[in-house]
Amino acid sequence: MVKKFVVGVIGAGRIGKIHIENLLRKLPDVDLKIVADIKITNDMTQWATEIGVTKLTSNVNEIFLDPDIDVVVIASSTNTHAELIKEAALVKKHIFCEKPIDTDIKRIKNTLAIVKKEGVKLMVGFNRRFDHNFKRIHDAVVSGQIGIPQIIKITSRDPSPPPIEYIKVSGGIFIDMTIHDWDMARFQAGSEVEEVYAAGGVLIDPEIGKAGDIDTAVAVLKFKNGALGIIDNSRQAVYGYDQRVEVFGSKGCVLADNDTPNTVRIYTTENISTDKIPHFFLERYMDSYAVELQSFFNCLQNNEEPSPTGDDGLQNVLVAIAAKKSYQERRPIKISEIDI
Amino acid sequence: MVKKFVVGVIGAGRIGKIHIENLLRKLPDVDLKIVADIKITNDMTQWATEIGVTKLTSNVNEIFLDPDIDVVVIASSTNTHAELIKEAALVKKHIFCEKPIDTDIKRIKNTLAIVKKEGVKLMVGFNRRFDHNFKRIHDAVVSGQIGIPQIIKITSRDPSPPPIEYIKVSGGIFIDMTIHDWDMARFQAGSEVEEVYAAGGVLIDPEIGKAGDIDTAVAVLKFKNGALGIIDNSRQAVYGYDQRVEVFGSKGCVLADNDTPNTVRIYTTENISTDKIPHFFLERYMDSYAVELQSFFNCLQNNEEPSPTGDDGLQNVLVAIAAKKSYQERRPIKISEIDI
Amino acid sequence: MVKKFVVGVIGAGRIGKIHIENLLRKLPDVDLKIVADIKITNDMTQWATEIGVTKLTSNVNEIFLDPDIDVVVIASSTNTHAELIKEAALVKKHIFCEKPIDTDIKRIKNTLAIVKKEGVKLMVGFNRRFDHNFKRIHDAVVSGQIGIPQIIKITSRDPSPPPIEYIKVSGGIFIDMTIHDWDMARFQAGSEVEEVYAAGGVLIDPEIGKAGDIDTAVAVLKFKNGALGIIDNSRQAVYGYDQRVEVFGSKGCVLADNDTPNTVRIYTTENISTDKIPHFFLERYMDSYAVELQSFFNCLQNNEEPSPTGDDGLQNVLVAIAAKKSYQERRPIKISEIDI
Amino acid sequence: MVKKFVVGVIGAGRIGKIHIENLLRKLPDVDLKIVADIKITNDMTQWATEIGVTKLTSNVNEIFLDPDIDVVVIASSTNTHAELIKEAALVKKHIFCEKPIDTDIKRIKNTLAIVKKEGVKLMVGFNRRFDHNFKRIHDAVVSGQIGIPQIIKITSRDPSPPPIEYIKVSGGIFIDMTIHDWDMARFQAGSEVEEVYAAGGVLIDPEIGKAGDIDTAVAVLKFKNGALGIIDNSRQAVYGYDQRVEVFGSKGCVLADNDTPNTVRIYTTENISTDKIPHFFLERYMDSYAVELQSFFNCLQNNEEPSPTGDDGLQNVLVAIAAKKSYQERRPIKISEIDI
Repeated sequence: MVKKFVVGVIGAGRIGKIHIENLLRKLPDVDLKIVADIKITNDMTQWATEIGVTKLTSNVNEIFLDPDIDVVVIASSTNTHAELIKEAALVKKHIFCEKPIDTDIKRIKNTLAIVKKEGVKLMVGFNRRFDHNFKRIHDAVVSGQIGIPQIIKITSRDPSPPPIEYIKVSGGIFIDMTIHDWDMARFQAGSEVEEVYAAGGVLIDPEIGKAGDIDTAVAVLKFKNGALGIIDNSRQAVYGYDQRVEVFGSKGCVLADNDTPNTVRIYTTENISTDKIPHFFLERYMDSYAVELQSFFNCLQNNEEPSPTGDDGLQNVLVAIAAKKSYQERRPIKISEIDI
Repeated sequence: MVKKFVVGVIGAGRIGKIHIENLLRKLPDVDLKIVADIKITNDMTQWATEIGVTKLTSNVNEIFLDPDIDVVVIASSTNTHAELIKEAALVKKHIFCEKPIDTDIKRIKNTLAIVKKEGVKLMVGFNRRFDHNFKRIHDAVVSGQIGIPQIIKITSRDPSPPPIEYIKVSGGIFIDMTIHDWDMARFQAGSEVEEVYAAGGVLIDPEIGKAGDIDTAVAVLKFKNGALGIIDNSRQAVYGYDQRVEVFGSKGCVLADNDTPNTVRIYTTENISTDKIPHFFLERYMDSYAVELQSFFNCLQNNEEPSPTGDDGLQNVLVAIAAKKSYQERRPIKISEIDI
Repeated sequence: MVKKFVVGVIGAGRIGKIHIENLLRKLPDVDLKIVADIKITNDMTQWATEIGVTKLTSNVNEIFLDPDIDVVVIASSTNTHAELIKEAALVKKHIFCEKPIDTDIKRIKNTLAIVKKEGVKLMVGFNRRFDHNFKRIHDAVVSGQIGIPQIIKITSRDPSPPPIEYIKVSGGIFIDMTIHDWDMARFQAGSEVEEVYAAGGVLIDPEIGKAGDIDTAVAVLKFKNGALGIIDNSRQAVYGYDQRVEVFGSKGCVLADNDTPNTVRIYTTENISTDKIPHFFLERYMDSYAVELQSFFNCLQNNEEPSPTGDDGLQNVLVAIAAKKSYQERRPIKISEIDI
Repeated sequence: MVKKFVVGVIGAGRIGKIHIENLLRKLPDVDLKIVADIKITNDMTQWATEIGVTKLTSNVNEIFLDPDIDVVVIASSTNTHAELIKEAALVKKHIFCEKPIDTDIKRIKNTLAIVKKEGVKLMVGFNRRFDHNFKRIHDAVVSGQIGIPQIIKITSRDPSPPPIEYIKVSGGIFIDMTIHDWDMARFQAGSEVEEVYAAGGVLIDPEIGKAGDIDTAVAVLKFKNGALGIIDNSRQAVYGYDQRVEVFGSKGCVLADNDTPNTVRIYTTENISTDKIPHFFLERYMDSYAVELQSFFNCLQNNEEPSPTGDDGLQNVLVAIAAKKSYQERRPIKISEIDI
């Protein structure tokens, strides 16, 4: 028999709203009981009513203290993640938390220790693993169709940079933007990163440089199983949100091109043209958020460990910090230099 | 200010359910008040509750007699369409009706006359016009990018034939299956059909032949503006639901290939492969149903005439009947021979 | 051991030059001894010297009377084909002849009878069968990969119309242009045409209409094995030389898109674009002429019957004449009405 | 008026034969007078006769001492290049030389100094610049269509490793195989390399490791203009010869996919498949060799400097040596560390 999980969501911002919509509309066996947000606006109240949220509160404890609630979905700001995970774990609730867990290695490790001790399940929201293209690549890799992975190649470019104010507090491109690519590379390689080399520059906007960050980056990964990884990032692909993954192996190669809005080609005396790729991450990855939550609740239902795990969250931050150090010190950095 | 239309839906079968879901989830400015179905099952009741239908009745008059209701969505079986349209028109409700209006020319004309007399708006559900690919083609044509349309080319193949029992009462391939293609051809040509020639055969299942129908068909259209059309149909494309449209014009050509489930290519020592195209019409055209209803309510909101119109419904049936006659008499048939 | 065939070529016009180049450069086991052309210009002499033609004559009998010559390649104007085939056959030389053999059914039959009586081999130059795309389709069909062919779909559009003077003497679009498509359809269907229906119009240039021809045409074929064919032609695809073939069968579908000059895609803020398809038939089909001749000489070497045969030449003209009659009489025409 | 250049070719091995064929067949305004090869076999003599080489000698001085000869094409083994370039320069003949000039920086510089002093023209055979895909990318970049180049991305994978004996003397993957990619990256970036980081491993064949080389490599480039480059190489792509280039810039992105043997797609119940990409570099780059020579002779004709220049040859070797050092020392290497 199917258990009906009762859920509380913390955070009703951009990503929180997506999770709430998916819980209400695409997860029939889940009961969303409470949504908590630190700052409830009129707009939020109206949105919640229309969509069918039955209870909206600014007091997160209403979730933690509610004995009916089995699961907490954390979609609040990054700096609150570690604390909320701990609190949820201590009241024995399973946890889905948006990435990253934290940007401080010690805090992450401490948080994961508590999760382990309390015996609750934790999934970290690296939604791109559930994207129809990248999951299909993973299936091909796991099924052995391309043999042993040897080169993982990721292109990940945003359509436009975030505001400079955001960049200043973002932790830098390697932890803010490339974090998804570290996870994707590890996911597809089926191995942990041993060493990273990162290079980059300020090619788009000097203000980004003044804010202490770079806007264009490339990285080389060495995995423990010997595979190599290459990643390229840009904060500004003027033609749209460029998201491609490729895995080259001993028996073949599997690669995903960008999604397109339609299949139409127009032949004229000038050229053959098609429409641009999607411009924004919500268009590109919308479905992956629903599949992600479905996977999480399936694991809970079957008492399996959900994935990406808390350790995935940790490893991705380790790589990000190593990459930043590599960029700063102009040398390849072993993860063992960071993870001490 | 936005008027909030109150809607009643008649018919909660496969297509009716899609409309109901779209009304509830994707049309925030519409209020679905009553769903009527001639035969309410337990499953239907449970489904309705879960999705948020507030009233489910087997008495269609609850819709017609409800003064709050502005709009009737008709998704019941084909043989009830004409009668329900008339009733809805007489009580001054706007009408969205699934295709076809009817298969009898006189009844269609009579129905449309009443709609006209009562001054209500009517849209017929040729949803493929709202498909992301085919709408994009239409945009290219209408914007003049390919000049004057000269050849309209449509490939429309089902993944597998319907049950023989269905085929016996379907009216034949030209009215049951090609009806969508007559509409698509007229839509893209921007002109009415003057003459049709149809050929075909029983190449898939002799039982289809015994039931008085054919399973493979091709047709040539001549449009009043001089353009030509070619259509090919099959009841069984074993590789999936094959849906392609092309418009060739004086300044270029625009064409849509099939949708694909992902963009992944796998290179092996054997070949390069991609996943199959979607197998079923619901996967392929799901979005078009929502866009279709949005278009309908936008027209109501702005007091514009919705399209496809009742006359589109009439014209498509005229072409279908002409095609059937052409096949039977082995000669091209002018629409004027049918529309008397 | 490989026999070295000695060859004479009649006609050094556009197509003749291609054959001569291929004989000299791509057929090492063939010895081109004499080229004959009715009108030898200075340009032709210079071209012949540069390319390595050892003998150029205006007297075709130097070929027919040369006992060393085993093979005659006929690339002169159409009205000379039948006579030259006969003469070559009577002096026991194998014959490769450009299409069509003739446009008069009786003359063709008479010519083929003499070829048969003299026991020489004859191949007719329907080069598109040797195109890398269309040959690949044929391989897929013949190997059974798509099961039994049910629908043959051909799009064949020229980049621009020939001069009006040419059109006046061309015999009309169905014999001048569609002739290649009749052959391609028969080649891919693996069956003879039983009936054809053709429609068309003057949509591009009224002068073509005044010259007694049409510039846009579509046709429906019924094959003896039950398969259906659809063909669309235009004299003017402004975006290039549009050449596509598709075979739909009981187990799948195989289709060839147009060739492209390169694989480059350019992403900009406007769209994604690629370069245009080739503009001219020589760019598109150049390789096929060499493969065609190689196939011919392979057959001679192995004493096999070359294909396309003389009968292919006959059948294609029969279909062309039936199509013209169909267009004129506005009804489907059985080949048996023509082949009397 | 067109000057008819008289040419001598040194070396009639695999690449030499390609140049000879192109000179004879595709460069009508060039006169190939002498071919010299250190070891003339019977097969070579027969091949030369058949193709139309008028003089074949084992004495290279017959070329250098022939006053008629204007141009020397050097396609002998790498270790002879520098010496032959010098000799040709001293007798005032223009030089086309296969890559690389040499693998020793001092010898290259010395050679280029003599070429400069003697005032003859020198082109180095980086043929991939003339490939239809990569030249098209360059055109898009140079024309400003994608703005300022920011990331150059190259995938270059061989279908299978060369013999171990070859690998032992090859100088290593970075100078033997990646040399083409260093050139391509510089060509597309429009800037010189400032720093390179290379990583790699032995993932395909342990024998390659025993021979002191690696078989899988990735590299990061920093260009003087700020652009970044990423390259990935494999000695064994079992699915064919994988050759792709991408340039990402401030206004867009341009990329070339692999060539395909035809455009045919086969739809079955399993998947959609296309034929494999070409397996060998001669299939992939054949045309580029002819275009390359044409470019060289055009420059001679117009007294322009041919490109890729001798300095390109030098720069590519500098980057290769830096990459090898980077791999060995596990740190990024500035070209200025090598070029001393």
